[in-house]
Amino acid sequence: MKRSNRLIVLTQYFLENPHTHTQLPYFVDLCNTTKSSISEDLDIIHDVFEQQGIGYLHRTTGASGGVRFIPKNTEGKNEKFIQGLCEILKDPDRILPGGYLYMSDLLGDPKTVREIGRIFASSFASLEIDAIVTVATKGIPLAYAVASFLNVPVVIARRDPQVTEGSSVSINYVSGSSRKIQTMVLAKRSLKEGSKVCIIDDFMKAGGTITGIMNLLAEFDAEVKAIGVFAEADDEEEERKVTNYTSLIKISHVDPEEKKMEIIPGNYR
Amino acid sequence: MKRSNRLIVLTQYFLENPHTHTQLPYFVDLCNTTKSSISEDLDIIHDVFEQQGIGYLHRTTGASGGVRFIPKNTEGKNEKFIQGLCEILKDPDRILPGGYLYMSDLLGDPKTVREIGRIFASSFASLEIDAIVTVATKGIPLAYAVASFLNVPVVIARRDPQVTEGSSVSINYVSGSSRKIQTMVLAKRSLKEGSKVCIIDDFMKAGGTITGIMNLLAEFDAEVKAIGVFAEADDEEEERKVTNYTSLIKISHVDPEEKKMEIIPGNYR
Repeated sequence: MKRSNRLIVLTQYFLENPHTHTQLPYFVDLCNTTKSSISEDLDIIHDVFEQQGIGYLHRTTGASGGVRFIPKNTEGKNEKFIQGLCEILKDPDRILPGGYLYMSDLLGDPKTVREIGRIFASSFASLEIDAIVTVATKGIPLAYAVASFLNVPVVIARRDPQVTEGSSVSINYVSGSSRKIQTMVLAKRSLKEGSKVCIIDDFMKAGGTITGIMNLLAEFDAEVKAIGVFAEADDEEEERKVTNYTSLIKISHVDPEEKKMEIIPGNYR
Repeated sequence: MKRSNRLIVLTQYFLENPHTHTQLPYFVDLCNTTKSSISEDLDIIHDVFEQQGIGYLHRTTGASGGVRFIPKNTEGKNEKFIQGLCEILKDPDRILPGGYLYMSDLLGDPKTVREIGRIFASSFASLEIDAIVTVATKGIPLAYAVASFLNVPVVIARRDPQVTEGSSVSINYVSGSSRKIQTMVLAKRSLKEGSKVCIIDDFMKAGGTITGIMNLLAEFDAEVKAIGVFAEADDEEEERKVTNYTSLIKISHVDPEEKKMEIIPGNYR
């Protein structure tokens, strides 16, 4: 295989297999070439990925050495993307009764969702996360986007047990906004004891749901390494229960009557 | 930019932007080169994508001409992947009380989900679909995977209305398996009248849920161009209500007492 063809094949492989350790002989076979040619190809790809702000190739030497593609957005790229989202969300028509914000169109766009996933995955790249945990329903697409860039499985907690998931563990928690007691369940088979996890959700106000997930995860002896929420909103009535989290945007001073609010980048930087 | 660098940049662009019409001047700017060099690059990428069974570049000429990457799996690749899934699902420990099958681990793996999405997107590539529709919860990851390869938005119907989605349309339908009357709602803002849509779900037995979605979509004057379900299962008690669908695997003769079942590739070929 010629260099030009190899570069296309290898680029495709890395983009489809982020955070995957691959030994060089695999590529030697795949491209029917020599180890030194592959090594040169990897240098070129690494440099272009860095220039383009896509990420980098992490290479290790020795008997089990190989290469791993780490997706890593540049700060400038993130900044531009988040500012763009803030502009879109500022539209006063998005304010719904009760001070909620309509975001389903944004979170229904697979490209936007993937980009959000890429930003969280960039931030959490070095945490050696074993699984992404979310709660049904709205966090699911974001959780998969993050998971696909970190190459780890997604585990979904639910409000109600499902017959198709076998036996499960459940907890009760107090929802921050409605102050109602709610239930959250997680299938026993879905998470290994002692896993290092990252919690992903679309929205956080007082943090009741995230606290619920954390209590549920404690039953699995899981270690919460990171919490990522797409949008955080101020809750004037209640103190936030969760303090150590990463948010991409921050919504505050929502005034449904005046159709006004403030939307600024979150604490992700 | 040198050819080697350009090939990496262009490959990344196409993989991240499937089914997106892009005019050549965009690439001329991006790579700071000539139109004829870009044209040669596209020929090389097209050939490698075809050889690798990834898809192809569709080029159009004329004033608004350009290029579009169409993801298209080869049949051999699909065959191998589906056979692999069948083998995994055959494990008798997956049979749950009531004859259900545990699949959450498979559908929790982002790589598997993306591959399933790629297969459906390959099959439905020429249907000019405007949106993917699914119903919460389990179909959501698959719907996003298909949508990301077709470059269209995802619209999620729910069992209960959500305050964060504004006004909605709701219908009642009879669930095939439980024979209960259920509700399904879709936010009014979420789908334009007259859209051409593809329905995606993880599982279909008698087809009650899919029929429910179709009735709901009729309220939006939507045209259902395709239905894709990951797994279909025989329902001995009831005739199937949906006939025109694509399935990747087929489950039959589930015997929970004997822990036996048959799992074969679906009708996707």
